[in-house]
Amino acid sequence: MKTDIWVDGEPVSSVPATDRGLAYGDGLFETIRIVKRRPTLAEFHWQRLAKGLNRLAITLDIEWLMEEVATFLSLQSASGGVLKVLITRGSGGRGYNPAGCSGARRILSFHALPKHPESNRNAGITLYPCSTRLGHNSLAGMKHLNRLENVLARAEWDGSEFQEGLMLDLDGLPVEGTMTNLFLVKNGTLYTPALNRCGVSGICREFILRQASGWGVPVVVQELDEQTLLNADEVFVCNSVNGVWPVARYRHISWPVGVVTATVRDRVLEVLNG
Amino acid sequence: MKTDIWVDGEPVSSVPATDRGLAYGDGLFETIRIVKRRPTLAEFHWQRLAKGLNRLAITLDIEWLMEEVATFLSLQSASGGVLKVLITRGSGGRGYNPAGCSGARRILSFHALPKHPESNRNAGITLYPCSTRLGHNSLAGMKHLNRLENVLARAEWDGSEFQEGLMLDLDGLPVEGTMTNLFLVKNGTLYTPALNRCGVSGICREFILRQASGWGVPVVVQELDEQTLLNADEVFVCNSVNGVWPVARYRHISWPVGVVTATVRDRVLEVLNG
Repeated sequence: MKTDIWVDGEPVSSVPATDRGLAYGDGLFETIRIVKRRPTLAEFHWQRLAKGLNRLAITLDIEWLMEEVATFLSLQSASGGVLKVLITRGSGGRGYNPAGCSGARRILSFHALPKHPESNRNAGITLYPCSTRLGHNSLAGMKHLNRLENVLARAEWDGSEFQEGLMLDLDGLPVEGTMTNLFLVKNGTLYTPALNRCGVSGICREFILRQASGWGVPVVVQELDEQTLLNADEVFVCNSVNGVWPVARYRHISWPVGVVTATVRDRVLEVLNG
Repeated sequence: MKTDIWVDGEPVSSVPATDRGLAYGDGLFETIRIVKRRPTLAEFHWQRLAKGLNRLAITLDIEWLMEEVATFLSLQSASGGVLKVLITRGSGGRGYNPAGCSGARRILSFHALPKHPESNRNAGITLYPCSTRLGHNSLAGMKHLNRLENVLARAEWDGSEFQEGLMLDLDGLPVEGTMTNLFLVKNGTLYTPALNRCGVSGICREFILRQASGWGVPVVVQELDEQTLLNADEVFVCNSVNGVWPVARYRHISWPVGVVTATVRDRVLEVLNG
């Protein structure tokens, strides 16, 4: 019995072709680092998911989902890895109208932790300058299933020279990586782009925003232009699976791994290691 | 044997949970009116699909797809209806990178023609003023699977008072209906919004743009503001399933079914009736 994918609580690995997630990207997802069979940064993930479901008017009992996830994780052969929780509006007829849809469909899948070189975390990475732009829209922040821009940006490079790509918005402002959020440090203060018009409000970013002042690091959320990024003292990207990766190179600029970045990286790692 | 859904040429009604269309909206679709087991406006649909696949770097032999569609249509119990052709990048691992995906997955489904009142076509419809805005992005024009804005806009009203909703973009410019394109007539000339920053380049719109001058109607594609719409002599919406619906009411303005609208409606209907 294949148990690394569950659809609506059953160990099956397919979904109806009428699913609204497939038809329109009508749903949301969370990608969660699992340690000792437990989600890390769980409250952040469930809060974001609940907020997104509310915005899309998809009804789902999160407490009940958390119980299903616990059962699912208890049956995996590995105690650590990555859990993907994908929620769609369920099945519906042809046409955009969500009225009459079957209601939330739950797709859980368990994956091995991605294998990235240790140097990503220690020496830092090189960012590819993506030409695919993030558009502006009113769905910004949500981790919904409309992710073609990220797919096209990630398709722009291959090989091992670049470990992540930086995405600018339509105005040329740096916003995020294809799968990470962006931070920079200037004169001891952390800055991260505002996500009012595009981008995903990442869990690791949220964690850092909430904790930074407790670590003695002031943090500012605002629009940042590319020159500000190039003039930064330190730069890093982060997500809730891999934690913090210092950025060592972007375009013609190189950065050392700075003290603020190292502090944030180590604090995040503590949480991600359970 | 259920034959109204085929996935990759097989009469099955489910897709792998690893499908990229489900994960990221990584794919495209066409909704095609079928008459006597044949697609109407076929060359327009296949051309748009081919262009979109090229843009997304999804490889698919369109000639071969057309043959599959013909076989699929020959097996349906009804000779008329609506064919939905949905193409995704196939199955892939977790993560945005499209490298290593299984390649195009084909999902064909056959549906009854939607039942709309005859008055939609004859007396015209009332447009709901949607508050969901179309964002600006570089994917404009394509009929891709990232359609959450359309879903949220269509969810704004129910009941029979409104037959379609008008969507404005982030700047407040009218762009299209939730499932239709928008035209207006002023002093005998047709105008339709430019779709450089948002919107779907609809098949019926394309047909009209190509044919209008042959019908003796000049046509202009440009940005239009809402005041221009309200001041129009005639307004209509269109798609390739329902054809042209005159707009009789939008906000505080009423329009009669004008002579240009009636001409275009009737010419389109000839084609959609095979």
